[in-house]
Amino acid sequence: MNVFYLPDAREGNVSFPEEESKHIVRVLRMREGDTFCVTNGKGSLFDAELIDAHPKRAMANLLNRRDGYDNRAFKLSIAIAPTKLNERTEWFLEKATEIGIDEIKLFASYHSERRVVNVERFKKIVVAAMKQSVKSNMPIIEEMQTFENLVRQDFHGQKFIAWIDEEVKDQLCNLYDKGSDVLVLIGPEGDFSKDEVELAKANGFVPVSLGEARLRTETAAIVACHTIQLINQMK
Amino acid sequence: MNVFYLPDAREGNVSFPEEESKHIVRVLRMREGDTFCVTNGKGSLFDAELIDAHPKRAMANLLNRRDGYDNRAFKLSIAIAPTKLNERTEWFLEKATEIGIDEIKLFASYHSERRVVNVERFKKIVVAAMKQSVKSNMPIIEEMQTFENLVRQDFHGQKFIAWIDEEVKDQLCNLYDKGSDVLVLIGPEGDFSKDEVELAKANGFVPVSLGEARLRTETAAIVACHTIQLINQMK
Repeated sequence: MNVFYLPDAREGNVSFPEEESKHIVRVLRMREGDTFCVTNGKGSLFDAELIDAHPKRAMANLLNRRDGYDNRAFKLSIAIAPTKLNERTEWFLEKATEIGIDEIKLFASYHSERRVVNVERFKKIVVAAMKQSVKSNMPIIEEMQTFENLVRQDFHGQKFIAWIDEEVKDQLCNLYDKGSDVLVLIGPEGDFSKDEVELAKANGFVPVSLGEARLRTETAAIVACHTIQLINQMK
Repeated sequence: MNVFYLPDAREGNVSFPEEESKHIVRVLRMREGDTFCVTNGKGSLFDAELIDAHPKRAMANLLNRRDGYDNRAFKLSIAIAPTKLNERTEWFLEKATEIGIDEIKLFASYHSERRVVNVERFKKIVVAAMKQSVKSNMPIIEEMQTFENLVRQDFHGQKFIAWIDEEVKDQLCNLYDKGSDVLVLIGPEGDFSKDEVELAKANGFVPVSLGEARLRTETAAIVACHTIQLINQMK
């Protein structure tokens, strides 16, 4: 089943912007009467029937608005220092969207090897993954910010900083309370500086380990994301 | 800390094969007296000191043989139908090695879009990931086989087939017994055929879901791998 994204989707006749129209009509060669699925990225899915196969402003009739299977009672946020190689961060974005995530915060840290990213490109990856996995919620990607700003932001929920250090014995999977909103910070290739860990602790973040395995930045971020999802899935 | 792979590593003076020697001496420009770590891929790590910076047969003195942090009491095997795009399978191999896996079985299935793979290339990816994450165990990658052969093989442990079907309500995370050896089958992009699921069931495989999220093949494989590791990490 093909899925398209229309942020202002509602039941009734709707028209698609140029890029999505091109995809529907030119790439997938859909014709009037063909059916597909529409996500609004805000928790709802719709059934759709193409009523005008216009290549620049395709129109469809939407019906059967329903909650997506991915609506959750908790909110999962991951903050990540983008990796030196963009494709590693992009891979994380795709996989986290598939597995399920609400918010991705990007930050520049003392040891960051990348301080500039193309957030618009990141958003396209997330939209593609949302459509591919038939999600009704689009993860929000915030613009890059400094580590200092990030840890001083208000966040209502459990706050963790994943830090590789011998003195950190507690694991995320054993400290996270099922059902809670949560924010996990994942450091850059060179990890957080000691000052950064202290600043995070002073702002209520609890240092956690993700286990004994030594993980790359993007792998740690996926492991953190899946840890939270799995604990919420378990009986 | 740089890590090198020497399958027949032992305490005392050892020489490295040409490719690893080139990496030590030409790429990393190490000199006599420089120290590094050596993994034998079979559960042991060593400290090493370079004693001859020969670019084709470098020699080192190995000492302090010890168990790797990644030695486990259970054995984790994942069988995967390689994806149409090789890079997706390769990504799984890298991430599974980081997270921890013992054995990767490759199979061709009814809906497989790829029936030929370069296992030597796959092994290089796994070696690189093992070194990067300082693992003492190298995952074993078997040659491609048919689905029929795979499910008829002897395997002592829990056997699961991850299958997307409304009638499959049980989740891997709720059926896996902590500490058990386990084999999980992950199907191709078009999923398993009904006949394949029946054949697997007849051979003792239990159908499981990985949760409500619709995952790509390689994402499902990573989620299965991390599910087993996480359950074994949890208190």
